[in-house]
Amino acid sequence: CLVAALPASAQSSLSMYGLVDMSVGSFKNPGADATKGVVSGNMTTSYFGLKGSEDLGGGLTASFAIESFMRSDTGAAGRFNGDTFWARSSWVGLSTPSLGALNIGRNTTSLFVNTLLFNAFGDSFGFSPSIRHTFTSGTVTGDTGWSDSIKYSSPKFGGLSFTAHVAAGEANGGKNGGLSALYFGGPLALGFAWQSVSKGDTVDNTKAWQLGGSYALGDAKLFAQYGNVDNDATGNGYDITGLGTSVKFGAGSLLAQWGRISPDTGAKRTTFSLGYDYFVSKRTDLYAVYMSDKLSGLSSGTSYAVGIRHRF
Amino acid sequence: CLVAALPASAQSSLSMYGLVDMSVGSFKNPGADATKGVVSGNMTTSYFGLKGSEDLGGGLTASFAIESFMRSDTGAAGRFNGDTFWARSSWVGLSTPSLGALNIGRNTTSLFVNTLLFNAFGDSFGFSPSIRHTFTSGTVTGDTGWSDSIKYSSPKFGGLSFTAHVAAGEANGGKNGGLSALYFGGPLALGFAWQSVSKGDTVDNTKAWQLGGSYALGDAKLFAQYGNVDNDATGNGYDITGLGTSVKFGAGSLLAQWGRISPDTGAKRTTFSLGYDYFVSKRTDLYAVYMSDKLSGLSSGTSYAVGIRHRF
Amino acid sequence: CLVAALPASAQSSLSMYGLVDMSVGSFKNPGADATKGVVSGNMTTSYFGLKGSEDLGGGLTASFAIESFMRSDTGAAGRFNGDTFWARSSWVGLSTPSLGALNIGRNTTSLFVNTLLFNAFGDSFGFSPSIRHTFTSGTVTGDTGWSDSIKYSSPKFGGLSFTAHVAAGEANGGKNGGLSALYFGGPLALGFAWQSVSKGDTVDNTKAWQLGGSYALGDAKLFAQYGNVDNDATGNGYDITGLGTSVKFGAGSLLAQWGRISPDTGAKRTTFSLGYDYFVSKRTDLYAVYMSDKLSGLSSGTSYAVGIRHRF
Repeated sequence: CLVAALPASAQSSLSMYGLVDMSVGSFKNPGADATKGVVSGNMTTSYFGLKGSEDLGGGLTASFAIESFMRSDTGAAGRFNGDTFWARSSWVGLSTPSLGALNIGRNTTSLFVNTLLFNAFGDSFGFSPSIRHTFTSGTVTGDTGWSDSIKYSSPKFGGLSFTAHVAAGEANGGKNGGLSALYFGGPLALGFAWQSVSKGDTVDNTKAWQLGGSYALGDAKLFAQYGNVDNDATGNGYDITGLGTSVKFGAGSLLAQWGRISPDTGAKRTTFSLGYDYFVSKRTDLYAVYMSDKLSGLSSGTSYAVGIRHRF
Repeated sequence: CLVAALPASAQSSLSMYGLVDMSVGSFKNPGADATKGVVSGNMTTSYFGLKGSEDLGGGLTASFAIESFMRSDTGAAGRFNGDTFWARSSWVGLSTPSLGALNIGRNTTSLFVNTLLFNAFGDSFGFSPSIRHTFTSGTVTGDTGWSDSIKYSSPKFGGLSFTAHVAAGEANGGKNGGLSALYFGGPLALGFAWQSVSKGDTVDNTKAWQLGGSYALGDAKLFAQYGNVDNDATGNGYDITGLGTSVKFGAGSLLAQWGRISPDTGAKRTTFSLGYDYFVSKRTDLYAVYMSDKLSGLSSGTSYAVGIRHRF
Repeated sequence: CLVAALPASAQSSLSMYGLVDMSVGSFKNPGADATKGVVSGNMTTSYFGLKGSEDLGGGLTASFAIESFMRSDTGAAGRFNGDTFWARSSWVGLSTPSLGALNIGRNTTSLFVNTLLFNAFGDSFGFSPSIRHTFTSGTVTGDTGWSDSIKYSSPKFGGLSFTAHVAAGEANGGKNGGLSALYFGGPLALGFAWQSVSKGDTVDNTKAWQLGGSYALGDAKLFAQYGNVDNDATGNGYDITGLGTSVKFGAGSLLAQWGRISPDTGAKRTTFSLGYDYFVSKRTDLYAVYMSDKLSGLSSGTSYAVGIRHRF
């Protein structure tokens, strides 16, 4: 039995960490039936991970991370049957404070990071209109992490940093590429991400860009996102818009986020989520969320849940 | 390389733990051929796990556990092909000393706990007549852990505690429900568990109850169990009876357990196991077990094994 | 979050460890097309593991290890789809300094250990001619680890030690058996391994032996290997020869290894690898390797890669 709660060594470190998110609620997609049940990962996909770093001297650091999604309601590994075990992260890399970091393996896309940073519900696949419209509504292809990839993350120049990301096709479609920039200055944060997906013989080629921003105003934070996705295989395109806010209220925060997908061809999707997130501690929070999800021509989707999220 | 042997912090803790059980022997089910070989988990199913807790103040604690079965003879994860990776446990919960614990996710059933507590071979899927008759003989359905479930465990009132457990159907059959009570007082322990399984479209609905008890008498401990299972799909019912004892003998314990399934329709099954369990340390024991397993009308099953069980 | 960098307790220990190996390159097998890409485990198959030991008193120690291969380029677990999760190691055992170690479960074969010890590229499945000719060229059958097995490893008598290894057939083909001896004395090391594979209904029965040696000469180390494989199912036999050297050069080592498979029937395969391995620290190295792989009658295979290997 291994028990520890120690400061990291200056020389090298290994840490195990993760998050379990469980909720109880009712979930109804537009045009579908409602299902009541116990669900994993509605606010943050449950996972555990292992990471480490080694000081190589002269400012150079070697690092690695392996991270595994979990469906904690059934005990299944991965986000879906057939997902790879270490799908959340699986990379090794080198970094220096002045030159930045170069990681090789399976790396999270900057489009995903840009999407989660600039909406009130963060990386919630259950309730964030921004995450759902960008990654689970038939718009962007190619997952939120790219296998066989090399990702460069720059150091911060003032508040500005950028990334470049390439994934090899390996005789399985073409390459993926991505570029992004982030700026943090006082109350203002701005982000831009662009990506092109060709990897995967059965995956539609898509190009996507997204602009996002947030502004802190007293107890409130305002979020705005706008982006576009072009699907080369179907010829369809999608404008994705998001507006939201989080407001400190009592010991927690009120969260509100609105989003819309406007396709060149097909029905608009409009999603609105409202929640209250109460942090019992830095590591443990309780939440209650309501989501309305409308797709023209179909019965409305209405979902709600109460849940707990625990980080370790 | 991460090495630790530390006391848990008072504030929060994370621990990794598990058990590897390997044995060599010959296994013959009634009516089947004998197979000689090297087998994992005959006395306790091999597993590893990760658990943690966080003191939230005011007596409130957040906890989680993720635990994964292993077939250590082949290196396979899970108890069988298709088992979920974290099938042993996968939950997060809140507890207080005065109100008890509420855990959500995949929780062990109280029927399983009641079965392992009141027989001489504990949770042995290889050699405990009680475990085998209740969970691997076509009687109780729905596994020893329930996915999509919420389990409440009360604090102890004197020596008495109880649990209530519900698993959501999620458009896949109906709900599961379970209730149990446990009493520990001096040499006497008593337990009762009831459960109803409806979850799972391809799983027969069953209702089961079980009464168990143990009594410490000098160097001996006596065990008795009686229960009933009703299968709503087949209309068949099963009485399951168990009697056993463990007796300190030399540096170890002699274990003996007898059990019988008496179905309304069909053949009776009578199983008897005899073993010696030698604890080299608190964490490591060596065992030798013989089991006779008789099902009317079939050739007798006779199995024996010697093995090692190591906890970490 | 669990962070530790501690000396092991004298009494018992648990450690987590592993290796991530990622490279970028072009890979072409004889007669096949070249594939450019990002690859995991070319120099050492990526993995993570958990091991522990317990001092039982009187010189007796209980130990266990569970180790899992990873394809870190995609985040997949195992070496291939269908591999068991803990395929690298999965055993529990007892040992004493004077009697040696007896481990039961899934144990690494001594033929594999003998192969990796006596060639310049160690256990590299990507670039070691010795490893590739013995284990991935249709010669030896039965994997580098045996499930359902018991392995005995002797203590060292002077520089000499030996192993004996048996894997149960379990109604799935016959038994496997293996014997090996190793000698380390000053600059000289010698090894011999023999094995017979019958386990597995769909696995060809093979018998193999291998002799290997190395000699340290100033900054250089010389390697030689010779062995034979007989396939009982096809009647074909294979002589496998290897010669190589590693030479300290600057802050790293130059590696060169040549190998040939000479079958009784069929085409000869001749493989030559040349590399430079630069150790940034004991735990992290960077490598560049070129490999020529020729099979009579097919277009030459030519592969090259640059990579990083990080141990944790």
